[in-house]
Amino acid sequence: MKLRRSGRLVDMTHYLLQHPQGLVPLSFFADRYGSAKSSISEDLGIIKQTFEQQGIGTLVTVPGAAGGVRYIPYVSHEEASAYLEELCEMIAKPERLLPGGYLYMTDILGNPKVLNKVGKMFATAFSHKKVDVVMTMATKGIPLAHAVASFLNVPVVIVRRDSRVTEGSTVSINYVSGSSKRIQTMVLAKRSLETGSNVLIIDDFMKAGGTVSGMVNLLAEFQANVAGIGILVESENIEERLVDDYVSLAKLEKVSERDRQIEVQQGNYLQHVKENITIN
Amino acid sequence: MKLRRSGRLVDMTHYLLQHPQGLVPLSFFADRYGSAKSSISEDLGIIKQTFEQQGIGTLVTVPGAAGGVRYIPYVSHEEASAYLEELCEMIAKPERLLPGGYLYMTDILGNPKVLNKVGKMFATAFSHKKVDVVMTMATKGIPLAHAVASFLNVPVVIVRRDSRVTEGSTVSINYVSGSSKRIQTMVLAKRSLETGSNVLIIDDFMKAGGTVSGMVNLLAEFQANVAGIGILVESENIEERLVDDYVSLAKLEKVSERDRQIEVQQGNYLQHVKENITIN
Repeated sequence: MKLRRSGRLVDMTHYLLQHPQGLVPLSFFADRYGSAKSSISEDLGIIKQTFEQQGIGTLVTVPGAAGGVRYIPYVSHEEASAYLEELCEMIAKPERLLPGGYLYMTDILGNPKVLNKVGKMFATAFSHKKVDVVMTMATKGIPLAHAVASFLNVPVVIVRRDSRVTEGSTVSINYVSGSSKRIQTMVLAKRSLETGSNVLIIDDFMKAGGTVSGMVNLLAEFQANVAGIGILVESENIEERLVDDYVSLAKLEKVSERDRQIEVQQGNYLQHVKENITIN
Repeated sequence: MKLRRSGRLVDMTHYLLQHPQGLVPLSFFADRYGSAKSSISEDLGIIKQTFEQQGIGTLVTVPGAAGGVRYIPYVSHEEASAYLEELCEMIAKPERLLPGGYLYMTDILGNPKVLNKVGKMFATAFSHKKVDVVMTMATKGIPLAHAVASFLNVPVVIVRRDSRVTEGSTVSINYVSGSSKRIQTMVLAKRSLETGSNVLIIDDFMKAGGTVSGMVNLLAEFQANVAGIGILVESENIEERLVDDYVSLAKLEKVSERDRQIEVQQGNYLQHVKENITIN
């Protein structure tokens, strides 16, 4: 369908946002709108400039016959910094305190606006890594994992505590929960992960890291690689953490049930991004 | 930041896509770009025309001082029809057959492209209803529920089979699974749902409808209303279905483990949309 520049800009913006990380040949757009490639190049220049100016992300152009354009979503350092403060305030609300010193996080993990922002931040943090699939543990990590995956344009696989008949044959491992020292089981459907996959592990909470290191061991069973580990909230000072190399957004410093007080600090996100990401 | 029309079109398209269903005052855009409201109106005209022409959705303008513009995502009848065929083919692949006649659906439910499309289709099907929240049952319905919720711009609440300490106090009900006739429990955190909420129930699979009718009963405990029920796949001919009024995308007609054959037809989606949705 023939479109003028103004219409093309709207449709191309939508198309690129729907296909993050994917390489789109210029000829695809040229055919789609019946336009010359030179006009498409100019359109992409405008979109790239606006994306960068408005903090939406960037466009990377790959030259040559097999080339095209790729939309890379990213969150700028300033925006991330401001949002981390907002997130920490959200988590520190005393009404989240549950008996036993647990925190109610269900509303945060069910909020599409939060998920969208946090997903884009993790996608930014791991934009320098090759990620084929995002992995998480049922149940609470699932929405977060999908939010991240939507910006990386990769599928999600879900590790469970029990096997289900609807998953077919599975691989299971036993692991020791780092904080409670109990032996637990985790299970992943055999056909859900290919050998050699590069896997980004995403979870909502990490204490001593038993679950996450269990997932790392499970990946070894599949001969898959850990591309990275992203955690929404890590818990207060742990003597022996089972996992070293991870990116966290928030860190619980102190949870006092008696004083109804939650102290939250930013995690290592900004530091990680500063050291690893050249973009922006 | 002052932006020319071309830049405004790109940024407004991104903004509207990020905020579906939300009413955005024209003055918001006018302030954002330092532009006259009349220019913003013209921009919105171009975006609306392109959105409709390209099957992205539509813009609805609300006049007056409290007015603004609202992006309503929708999938056209033609696009939905074509995608349903694709989806049925995907489901009918014999390699999905598991022992016992179960189907492996994990890859479909973990694929962001499928989820994005299916989520937009359900949002279209329930665009005439007031929906405050999407509800689903852990685990497999979660990604689907979030995909739908992202287009309706509402939160998701998750019903579980067991209560967790991290959910705080809960309401639980017992229900009889329609197909296996076993008594089961479902649990929802008390603070996850407000009285009077209008709830869209989304699930990946429905056999006799025991789980879904359980969720309907659970909503009654919260004095919440059922805004609608959306099911990805309903199973083969059931004598006594516990739920009547639902929208399904696909229907298993026959699953033969011996012949390794799966017969899949379209569900009632197109019929439902035709009867209820005037848009497009």
